[in-house]
Amino acid sequence: MVVVMAPEATEEDVDAVVRSVRAAGGDAFVSRGVSRTIVGLVGDVDAFDALNLSNRRGVLDVVRISVPYKLVSREHHPDRSVIRVGGVPLGPDTLTVIAGPCAVETPEQTLAAARMAQQAGAALLRGGAFKPRTSPYAYQGLGEDGLRILAEVREETGLPVITEVIDPGTVELVAGYADMLQIGTRNMHNFALLQAVGAAGRPVLLKRGFAATIEEWLMAAEYIAQRGNLDIVLCERGIRTFETATRNTLDISAVPVVQRLSHLPVIVDPSHSGGRRDLVLPLTRAALAVGADGVLIDVHPDPGTALCDGDQAVPPSGIPELADAIAILSPLMGRTLAQPAPRGHAAVR
Amino acid sequence: MVVVMAPEATEEDVDAVVRSVRAAGGDAFVSRGVSRTIVGLVGDVDAFDALNLSNRRGVLDVVRISVPYKLVSREHHPDRSVIRVGGVPLGPDTLTVIAGPCAVETPEQTLAAARMAQQAGAALLRGGAFKPRTSPYAYQGLGEDGLRILAEVREETGLPVITEVIDPGTVELVAGYADMLQIGTRNMHNFALLQAVGAAGRPVLLKRGFAATIEEWLMAAEYIAQRGNLDIVLCERGIRTFETATRNTLDISAVPVVQRLSHLPVIVDPSHSGGRRDLVLPLTRAALAVGADGVLIDVHPDPGTALCDGDQAVPPSGIPELADAIAILSPLMGRTLAQPAPRGHAAVR
Amino acid sequence: MVVVMAPEATEEDVDAVVRSVRAAGGDAFVSRGVSRTIVGLVGDVDAFDALNLSNRRGVLDVVRISVPYKLVSREHHPDRSVIRVGGVPLGPDTLTVIAGPCAVETPEQTLAAARMAQQAGAALLRGGAFKPRTSPYAYQGLGEDGLRILAEVREETGLPVITEVIDPGTVELVAGYADMLQIGTRNMHNFALLQAVGAAGRPVLLKRGFAATIEEWLMAAEYIAQRGNLDIVLCERGIRTFETATRNTLDISAVPVVQRLSHLPVIVDPSHSGGRRDLVLPLTRAALAVGADGVLIDVHPDPGTALCDGDQAVPPSGIPELADAIAILSPLMGRTLAQPAPRGHAAVR
Amino acid sequence: MVVVMAPEATEEDVDAVVRSVRAAGGDAFVSRGVSRTIVGLVGDVDAFDALNLSNRRGVLDVVRISVPYKLVSREHHPDRSVIRVGGVPLGPDTLTVIAGPCAVETPEQTLAAARMAQQAGAALLRGGAFKPRTSPYAYQGLGEDGLRILAEVREETGLPVITEVIDPGTVELVAGYADMLQIGTRNMHNFALLQAVGAAGRPVLLKRGFAATIEEWLMAAEYIAQRGNLDIVLCERGIRTFETATRNTLDISAVPVVQRLSHLPVIVDPSHSGGRRDLVLPLTRAALAVGADGVLIDVHPDPGTALCDGDQAVPPSGIPELADAIAILSPLMGRTLAQPAPRGHAAVR
Repeated sequence: MVVVMAPEATEEDVDAVVRSVRAAGGDAFVSRGVSRTIVGLVGDVDAFDALNLSNRRGVLDVVRISVPYKLVSREHHPDRSVIRVGGVPLGPDTLTVIAGPCAVETPEQTLAAARMAQQAGAALLRGGAFKPRTSPYAYQGLGEDGLRILAEVREETGLPVITEVIDPGTVELVAGYADMLQIGTRNMHNFALLQAVGAAGRPVLLKRGFAATIEEWLMAAEYIAQRGNLDIVLCERGIRTFETATRNTLDISAVPVVQRLSHLPVIVDPSHSGGRRDLVLPLTRAALAVGADGVLIDVHPDPGTALCDGDQAVPPSGIPELADAIAILSPLMGRTLAQPAPRGHAAVR
Repeated sequence: MVVVMAPEATEEDVDAVVRSVRAAGGDAFVSRGVSRTIVGLVGDVDAFDALNLSNRRGVLDVVRISVPYKLVSREHHPDRSVIRVGGVPLGPDTLTVIAGPCAVETPEQTLAAARMAQQAGAALLRGGAFKPRTSPYAYQGLGEDGLRILAEVREETGLPVITEVIDPGTVELVAGYADMLQIGTRNMHNFALLQAVGAAGRPVLLKRGFAATIEEWLMAAEYIAQRGNLDIVLCERGIRTFETATRNTLDISAVPVVQRLSHLPVIVDPSHSGGRRDLVLPLTRAALAVGADGVLIDVHPDPGTALCDGDQAVPPSGIPELADAIAILSPLMGRTLAQPAPRGHAAVR
Repeated sequence: MVVVMAPEATEEDVDAVVRSVRAAGGDAFVSRGVSRTIVGLVGDVDAFDALNLSNRRGVLDVVRISVPYKLVSREHHPDRSVIRVGGVPLGPDTLTVIAGPCAVETPEQTLAAARMAQQAGAALLRGGAFKPRTSPYAYQGLGEDGLRILAEVREETGLPVITEVIDPGTVELVAGYADMLQIGTRNMHNFALLQAVGAAGRPVLLKRGFAATIEEWLMAAEYIAQRGNLDIVLCERGIRTFETATRNTLDISAVPVVQRLSHLPVIVDPSHSGGRRDLVLPLTRAALAVGADGVLIDVHPDPGTALCDGDQAVPPSGIPELADAIAILSPLMGRTLAQPAPRGHAAVR
Repeated sequence: MVVVMAPEATEEDVDAVVRSVRAAGGDAFVSRGVSRTIVGLVGDVDAFDALNLSNRRGVLDVVRISVPYKLVSREHHPDRSVIRVGGVPLGPDTLTVIAGPCAVETPEQTLAAARMAQQAGAALLRGGAFKPRTSPYAYQGLGEDGLRILAEVREETGLPVITEVIDPGTVELVAGYADMLQIGTRNMHNFALLQAVGAAGRPVLLKRGFAATIEEWLMAAEYIAQRGNLDIVLCERGIRTFETATRNTLDISAVPVVQRLSHLPVIVDPSHSGGRRDLVLPLTRAALAVGADGVLIDVHPDPGTALCDGDQAVPPSGIPELADAIAILSPLMGRTLAQPAPRGHAAVR
């Protein structure tokens, strides 16, 4: 941490800063320049944060050097992590495809979507039972009925199940059915929910908030980790910008940037990023080539009748091309396409 | 609603759209151009939404004309509403100042801040007991102890109390102490929380999400209203942009824009918008002059020791100038400065 | 300037930095922490910039402390400047209204708009002869014929004239007619044009780029100043954000922020910010109340027939209310409404 | 084009719109709904634009359906174009690598960078002689001396040369040396410069403005095309967002989006997008996989001494990995790596 003193700061002001830092168990080195004095701090940054140095007399600015997250940081955990969901790995050596319908509508639709997912190369099924919708008049999901359908389709297909939680009060209910809990983009800053999934004993898929910086995203992961749950997979799904040709702007650079900062796996959602069916294939290819650890793709047996985000769901006719791209690019990137665990494994969850 | 057909759409495609609209109880008018055909829809827009017309064969685009919110819209409720909080009005004829400490720390600090608030012209006290913080390592608030302090200070000063809720599970607890519930910027998209406060029987202060469009903000208000609670006050508090000189960019235009679209009162938070103490006074003046129905200001008896957002809190020395600006500008804008209700009133809440 | 060394930096790396800094005529103070070493630099920042320290081995980050502009900075010029345009002052003690038509169309329309401007309280006339338009198919302005009309209307009304330049090649031509040259938002980063107006011997109205940070804006002003022209007025006109309810988002906070950083006058354009006629009055009030040194308003005798930006032009019926707001708020802010110089003055330009 | 009438619009208002449209040679179809009337227009959209319908009494909104550019649109030119630069093709069947130093510094540095470019697979050399810099105190380039160096290195290597123009007044000079003229991101809205390069008889590399929508970018291309020059290559180079971990946010989705809208080739600049050397390789892979027609990469023989953007330049040690990625991904995407034309060809330019 570096404290920049204002030009008009007195010796007294500088001394006060140094004394506070030392009282907090740290050390301070003063560099006096012609127009400014700079104080370099050494020690526990959180203790320094509590000193509110930026409010002290004579202080112009406080510049933080180290990152404000720890458990999810790569600084103290240099090896990239492998997270397992119902036995399926997500990590640096595999490419894990997650696919399924945006919303669970019927058992038939969900099973059909799961079969499409498998054809595309997916090892995990994602479907929404509780849907956070911008409009209170939009379809809100089947709730627990949807969870039951997902569990049945898991039985039928062997695909472990990922589904979204939107309320701390229903986390336990959802965790009773799901293999992994998803935190959606609108809830990335919902700290009560982050703490609830941190304590739920299930891996978590944490989508980036559509207006969250990478640092805030990693802080949200830290909230989950702090409750003892480090089984976290990060999902880039596009950010809000001035561009309106796409629903969001896929921040493809976030993948390598986050992989440098954190040991957690990072996947990409090419469906919500673009919000357009015709972009799913090129953005999937881009995600694989940039080095993502997986992709999350919306599929639907009949997008024209979808109750949610039909504009972006891949229809059956689009699956072969997608499967080809995934099969070809994975080995090129030095990755094995992740497979569902043998049935026995899933049963003992 | 207007459906734009693609250049390659067939007569059959157009007919299918028209038939669907009529089957849903609406009517459709077809305009055939040289290169494109346009279908204008008349009837219940929500029924049309459910048709997923944008996914139909031959459809290029669906353009929505009317606003997607109703209860909070001015279209069917042309008069601007007056909301009362512990007897204090917020609406078109008054200017209501809300002030207090960002976080409740001690009884003394809270009482001192409340006295400062009164000197500034405030009729309502805002203080945080449950604090949503980006970092899990930052101060998280006193919880119920903080609520008790707020209730004591209300007794002492007569100022009704506003405080934030961050979890549907504690809404009832907080509503037992507070006169108004605040939804913070990070929770504007937390639909479970919106529904919980909609059912809590207390007025709601709904801050704009820092990356929410005005339309999304009004949709969030609609979530609350749909549960039977129309006592909602909207609070503009700055949006996220590329500019880093200020913590957020105060969207001052949002005030008149929202006042045209919705009948709900709109206030401005000049403290979180700029995130800088030196901007509170000029932004307060701008808020009053643009026509805001109130302002929400952070004050602290000793900002240098504040546990939260001390950089932006107004210290005691800044109160007189603020009070003057408020006293002078309110009547110029045709508004009466709102006063706390006489003691008897607050007692019967 | 502060150089943050990487955790793996060697003593050798640190020494190399220190040696370079001293060779460049500066001095360097080393603070060794437990996990990091920080080097504080003292001396000529531009000389340090040229050292490319961020590319040196072992360097993690270089943090600049002082501002990268000088001539326009308030650091070495603490008093706020007064700029005169055809004898009309812009500065801290006055409120200067500039108004006129977005585009000069005919002598009659321009004169009518100038008369409207005078009724609103304007001391300066702004009209566009060369129009930068996003579409090559949109109206591009009258060119020199428009300049002649402006000069005639100046004769008739006594209002000095401001008009936009869009090409270094026509700066001399335009300077022959105009009292002040406007750089539009799309050209704020057009360095060749900035240098040309810096050498043109006329005051310059520099609009903020719609996606420029405040720092970049001041750097653009520095380009002009470097050619010897410090008669610069800055104009905030809204920035590009995700919000679409307004054409741009007026960054009202930029006014006090820039007034702290620079000695140059800052005005606000409420017309282009909102892009909506109904927002001109409230945003003008907000601009005055926040402390702007002036406003720039589009007026048109018949907006329905305007060839450019008719949606935002104030019609004759809107002038009285605007004039009232300006007349009432100026003295409240401690400012005198600027008046055109007596005729004799303008004649000797 | 669709005109949406306000709820309070009268029959007279609707008739006035219809009459205007017909007087302008178009036709209008009226759809009367319960609360609103909609008028669909058929005919010449530019003629309708000139009618200023949004300013008419009773008109709420005017929705444009067709795209506002023509010459660069794929609507009337469905086949994707191939542009040749000194004999080197850019188009749908090739992958064209452009590389070189951000700034031309010396003959030796430029030649070394050109050799590195060739090793990476480049068929074209890009180097800056006139540099647009945010700060007037930053290195501004060698000017004509830099152009001479580029021409010498072209002689030596056979690589055709691309360099930036920043002033309409020097376009002719630069065109005398260069095979292709680059318009930089800060000048995308510099319409005088666009028109000058439109008339210069050289292919143009048009970078996207860092805050330009895709539509505005294509309108800028239309400005060039309108002067008779359709040899335009579009270059996505990152947009400005709230994220600060990267210098810009690469809008990777823009590549497939633009390829659908326009017949012009689209390439990606992975160097300026991220602004970080470690991101060049992953972003290059992503660009190739998303379907870009080429990439533009900064290389430097010794980035630590670079006078411009050294943080992002690929050093000699990074070339082999880059060359491998390009060699492997090109054929996978169905593309041939573009090669420089045989010497004889370049000579007859």
